[in-house]
Amino acid sequence: MSDQFISIYQTSEEQLLEKAVQDGVETMWDRKAAMKAPCGFGEKGICCRICAMGPCRISPVAGKGAQRGICGATADVIVARNLARMVAAGTASHSDHARDIAHVMHMASRDGNFKIRDEKKLLDLASEWGVKTEDRDIYEVAHEVAEIALNEFGKPFGTLRFLERAPEKRKKVWDDLQIRPRAIDREIATILHSTHIGCTGDAESLLHMSMRTALADGWGGSMIGTVFSDILYGTPVPRETESNLGVLDEKQVNIILHGHEPSLSEMIVMASLDPEMQKLAKKVGAEGINLAGMCCTGNEVTMRHGVKIAGNFYQQEMAVLTGAVEAVIVDVQCIFPSLVPITECYHTKFITTSPKAKITGATHIEFHEDRALESAKAIVREAIENFKNRKKEKVFIPTEKSSGVVGYSVEAIIKQLDKVVNPHIDPMGTIKPLADVIKAGVLRGAVGIVGCNNPKSKHDYSHIEIMKKMIANDVIVVTTGCAAQAAVKAGLTNKDARKLAGQGLATVCELVDIPPVLHLGSCVDISRIMTIVGEVAKHMDLDNSDLPVAGIAPEWMSEKAVAIANYVVATGIDTFLGITPPVTGSEEVMDIMTNRVEAMTGAKFFIEEDPHVLADKVLSRIEEKRQKLGI
Amino acid sequence: MSDQFISIYQTSEEQLLEKAVQDGVETMWDRKAAMKAPCGFGEKGICCRICAMGPCRISPVAGKGAQRGICGATADVIVARNLARMVAAGTASHSDHARDIAHVMHMASRDGNFKIRDEKKLLDLASEWGVKTEDRDIYEVAHEVAEIALNEFGKPFGTLRFLERAPEKRKKVWDDLQIRPRAIDREIATILHSTHIGCTGDAESLLHMSMRTALADGWGGSMIGTVFSDILYGTPVPRETESNLGVLDEKQVNIILHGHEPSLSEMIVMASLDPEMQKLAKKVGAEGINLAGMCCTGNEVTMRHGVKIAGNFYQQEMAVLTGAVEAVIVDVQCIFPSLVPITECYHTKFITTSPKAKITGATHIEFHEDRALESAKAIVREAIENFKNRKKEKVFIPTEKSSGVVGYSVEAIIKQLDKVVNPHIDPMGTIKPLADVIKAGVLRGAVGIVGCNNPKSKHDYSHIEIMKKMIANDVIVVTTGCAAQAAVKAGLTNKDARKLAGQGLATVCELVDIPPVLHLGSCVDISRIMTIVGEVAKHMDLDNSDLPVAGIAPEWMSEKAVAIANYVVATGIDTFLGITPPVTGSEEVMDIMTNRVEAMTGAKFFIEEDPHVLADKVLSRIEEKRQKLGI
Repeated sequence: MSDQFISIYQTSEEQLLEKAVQDGVETMWDRKAAMKAPCGFGEKGICCRICAMGPCRISPVAGKGAQRGICGATADVIVARNLARMVAAGTASHSDHARDIAHVMHMASRDGNFKIRDEKKLLDLASEWGVKTEDRDIYEVAHEVAEIALNEFGKPFGTLRFLERAPEKRKKVWDDLQIRPRAIDREIATILHSTHIGCTGDAESLLHMSMRTALADGWGGSMIGTVFSDILYGTPVPRETESNLGVLDEKQVNIILHGHEPSLSEMIVMASLDPEMQKLAKKVGAEGINLAGMCCTGNEVTMRHGVKIAGNFYQQEMAVLTGAVEAVIVDVQCIFPSLVPITECYHTKFITTSPKAKITGATHIEFHEDRALESAKAIVREAIENFKNRKKEKVFIPTEKSSGVVGYSVEAIIKQLDKVVNPHIDPMGTIKPLADVIKAGVLRGAVGIVGCNNPKSKHDYSHIEIMKKMIANDVIVVTTGCAAQAAVKAGLTNKDARKLAGQGLATVCELVDIPPVLHLGSCVDISRIMTIVGEVAKHMDLDNSDLPVAGIAPEWMSEKAVAIANYVVATGIDTFLGITPPVTGSEEVMDIMTNRVEAMTGAKFFIEEDPHVLADKVLSRIEEKRQKLGI
Repeated sequence: MSDQFISIYQTSEEQLLEKAVQDGVETMWDRKAAMKAPCGFGEKGICCRICAMGPCRISPVAGKGAQRGICGATADVIVARNLARMVAAGTASHSDHARDIAHVMHMASRDGNFKIRDEKKLLDLASEWGVKTEDRDIYEVAHEVAEIALNEFGKPFGTLRFLERAPEKRKKVWDDLQIRPRAIDREIATILHSTHIGCTGDAESLLHMSMRTALADGWGGSMIGTVFSDILYGTPVPRETESNLGVLDEKQVNIILHGHEPSLSEMIVMASLDPEMQKLAKKVGAEGINLAGMCCTGNEVTMRHGVKIAGNFYQQEMAVLTGAVEAVIVDVQCIFPSLVPITECYHTKFITTSPKAKITGATHIEFHEDRALESAKAIVREAIENFKNRKKEKVFIPTEKSSGVVGYSVEAIIKQLDKVVNPHIDPMGTIKPLADVIKAGVLRGAVGIVGCNNPKSKHDYSHIEIMKKMIANDVIVVTTGCAAQAAVKAGLTNKDARKLAGQGLATVCELVDIPPVLHLGSCVDISRIMTIVGEVAKHMDLDNSDLPVAGIAPEWMSEKAVAIANYVVATGIDTFLGITPPVTGSEEVMDIMTNRVEAMTGAKFFIEEDPHVLADKVLSRIEEKRQKLGI
């Protein structure tokens, strides 16, 4: 099924690229061609632009040409500094997103636009953080909890609170390495400081700091992002959705929701259901308002509302190329600036909403959280009123789409697992059934397949090939981000995809009533994966690094992915990268990442661009871990 | 005098470079030669390594070759993003330094190594910040004030406290532009977020954010750094010192103090005065312990203790080349990693002390603030014991050195100004006399000359040429950082340098008993310059941008300098750059910096590599400002 699917949607992409040529539109591929060969120094990470004595570039040939920058920095130092800054920027992105969610919770009120939807989760967190809950209004509790979270970004003393959620053995590793992050923003600032000219000149020290900072993402910003979004917008439960450009509907006002934070998109969902907006849509001749998500915003709203997914990162230009989109509404991250010239070729409005991500040439309608629904309606109105400008002759919507189940929060997974619990023998509501099937070998292991699209790789190909190989070998897949959208498009999040699974996994899927590939949400929701792995480890009285699990980023491209990879390894989980990071110019950095770091964290990086070879390596590493455990 | 001086010390540098060849030592110049032509894309700022779809580089020829990155980012966006990240890193560096000073104040105690030296300054600050002082132990007050400062880095609400010190008119500019920084680290993180792939795609928005972040340096981190260092280590008063490599003494244990934060160097000063250490020095055959500062650490200890200055940034390798240095002790920032291979050619120990700046191959002796003197003694002992390893045949110490007066804190300047106040008519202890002579035209204006050394420019040449031209034209010079050290070496901070000044300035210098070039301290002490300018503006009921003043960075090289330049412009003071920043690849960024920003902040950037032309431009801009004021 998925094979057939892939060939179909690649055909539709080809059709859209042909349309681009006809319409005189420049796409990513034109720009990639114009770029010619990428800079070899940049690719290897041996280009330094940190001070104005340079720029410097180290000769990739040892012993020949410049072997040190003007300040004396070696290739090892330059590569490690550049990498550390990628980690800092990735951490900043996830965390600044989380900060905004916490601010929204701080302004939530019973009669406002933002409400508390998951009271239990809030109360559990309040009790975890020692906030008094008895005889208090839930909003008072919410505001105090939000303020504590906001202080996680800048508190002068102590380390991050969510670290306590990890297994004891993992916490000991962090203590031994002294990499418990302090305040989130502090770690980011410290990386920038230590990578300033004339500070750290030691690759291992830089990678050590990078792990600490990355943990401030995974166990700080990202976890706050997930938990607080759940409290505000509801903890996801399994629901059906559809994905691919075929979800666009010629008869409706099509609105693409693209970006990352759920606050805007939640309000757009509310606004689009508003009778006034529905009436306006009818008035302009449309049958209704069709929201379609893209990138992580798409994941947020599909997880909580079943909003259809137009596609992932790579498809943002394609969606506009259909000529059927009235508005692309964006907030932050992974938004191509090229959407300006592309939307100008059609009637499509490109609407930016965040002061953190203005784009020259886009229509900026600022989203104000304190009058959220009103802001959202103004934006939706702009889209609806643009319907009349659509040029029929320019419309081409591919028919391809696929259905799937999304919404697997940790709570939802545990609820599914309860289906196989005999309540007379075992407790309900635990991760035990998952641990049991892993121990028994019915499942060989579990992998998280995450990350972006990258034009260096065939679109979604690595994601899908690796997922298929995993499930065929009884390795269950959890997935987030653009990888998760690839899975939905390929039909792998359908429950009937269990026929592609090995016998063990297929049986588990049937008994537990889940697909073999579980959509866990957006990129910040990799924190859900950290939680599940930690719960299984705790249940088995092991460390994360003992478990037959792995993280895989087959087509990553962003600095967020670099931060993720670093916190996953620091959490004790091997990480497999399908795109080579800009580190090959340093033997030492390569050695630390793919070898020495294992002695520190119990996990390491694998870099492998061939998805089939990568999959084989994952499987053999999983078996290695099983063997060590004697299971 | 200064001409003669310059020619002498350039000769001594040439001699040391010849010695480097003889000793088989690689210096900055060898590395610069090996680097060959710098990358044109990097120099113009049109190289993007922000995501792993690239690296991308924009063709510098409009309309030909790649005009957008793969994501669609234009040259304008790429240049502005790179520049914004430089501002963020510079801000992080100054601020992370300040954070540590605040932490030290938080642990200060009556019987500890760190004490409160300037109680008045602490009490004034406490009252400014609303901290109760009556009937409280000074250390209790100090700890509360320190905690407030530490929260300036990460408080979830509000804007920075020190901004209130600015003139009302300036605060209105900041409010209108909405660039009052919130928490310091938050602004840094937000820049990294907004420059992540697919966030801000608008050069003006990026420069706007850069100014906000930079203000978090100048009016946040840097000002905290200065004020808290004064409270802990004493507010500087004028004192004599000497500078240049000739301060090294063949008969003593020579210790170079290099880096930035004063906490370590203060303790080293204390440790070196300890009878036990003095005795040990005698025991190994030395006449004593000779401390010599370098870079901003040098400025910190010379301002407060008159410790001699071995030289500035460019001279760090030269100091080791003398063969007479027992130890180079460093903390953070502007430390050449090349000191490892160079010190290996001599007996010199290269001792790193900060976990934020470890360097492969250096001896790391961590400085622990909680047992500061003990740490410092261990480090000094290491240096003393190394005296016996000095190889006489490898020693060559240039004889050149110059004397000068340093220590001009704002308080010290006001105290000098009091000399010309008639207490029957005017109040003592104000900036009025300075404002009066500027108004009267006796002084045409004032400039801050600051920043680094850069091998793109002849060592110190631009600093000195511009200083001489300024004072000859009755423009008083305040200076910090490596520029200030250049001034001391050139004899310009000597009181008799007033003979190089125009008649107006010479008269003022005589009456007020100051040199024409005032050494104000380290790079974070540019906050002192912001304070003086603000006080003059307040006194004249003007905005900073109305005053005939300017900032000049003739030989800048670091990201800190980029942050400084941005906060100086945002503070309303024109900034002249003697080294072209990597922004020429964007017409829009160039236009904003050198033109459009003036309409926003009342000040703009001038980029001019010829020091004489630069000086002329400064003078004509000063006269322009005077004309506008009608003075």
